Amino acid sequence: MQDTQTNAPRHLEDFRIGDVIETASVTVTREMIVAFAREYDPQPMHLDESAARQTVFGELVGSGWQTLALTMRLLVDARLLGSTPIVGAEFKEMRFHAPVRPGDSLHARVEVTGLRASRSRPERGFLDMTVTTLNADGAPLITQHWSLVLPTRTAPV
Amino acid sequence: MQDTQTNAPRHLEDFRIGDVIETASVTVTREMIVAFAREYDPQPMHLDESAARQTVFGELVGSGWQTLALTMRLLVDARLLGSTPIVGAEFKEMRFHAPVRPGDSLHARVEVTGLRASRSRPERGFLDMTVTTLNADGAPLITQHWSLVLPTRTAPV
Repeated sequence: MQDTQTNAPRHLEDFRIGDVIETASVTVTREMIVAFAREYDPQPMHLDESAARQTVFGELVGSGWQTLALTMRLLVDARLLGSTPIVGAEFKEMRFHAPVRPGDSLHARVEVTGLRASRSRPERGFLDMTVTTLNADGAPLITQHWSLVLPTRTAPV
Repeated sequence: MQDTQTNAPRHLEDFRIGDVIETASVTVTREMIVAFAREYDPQPMHLDESAARQTVFGELVGSGWQTLALTMRLLVDARLLGSTPIVGAEFKEMRFHAPVRPGDSLHARVEVTGLRASRSRPERGFLDMTVTTLNADGAPLITQHWSLVLPTRTAPV
């Protein structure tokens, strides 16, 4: 387990394949679900219980985009890269296993799967990771693979 | 070009490979960027101009998660699938080409790249598409590939 509460910038060399980072959790309320949906994903299953019953979900569920955004929030708060900004280069194989329901508590787990120096820019590298968003029972809601850009120790940040 | 303003449900059979759908546009304000960041991505480059100048971006930019969520909003408003809910099965190869700045206008373009019947559930199929989020100059900000679940005509919706 990493010390993720540090304010120091983290570099590519600070990670090892197999490193695991677990975040705190956040509880998703009905109000959060509806507020996000009104602005970003105004579909019946995210806005209103009775309309949601007519959909394939059968009940009010959160937008998958909100679950993704909350996963980012959990990782920002966990200081995944210390004071180094979390900047995505590519997100891959984002799969939706189960929706979020009002009252669900979410947390995220990250496992480092790859470390790659940039060929063209030695001051940069890429950190590959599997990001899993889980509910309180430990069931995966979303799995995805991220490649983040971060500095190497060859140059000042 | 599809008639995407219909309220009728759309089925897998209503699409053809090569179909292109263009959305309306949305202008992203500084207030929108900061409000989203406070809730979902509280990093310096998304919160405050002077803090943003110290980052690799050099200026205030929107969270990529907000650009993704706004892309969803544009596609919901465009009634991409008519009255059929837009439900993602998998999102792939999500690449970030350029950030959003305050005042940028975004629109999205979808091109259908694949149609697949489900083997296990004949009442369902998968619609594969390339989704590009562009600025007013037509420069791509994000490209991604979506697989959506939607009904086939073999069963009532």
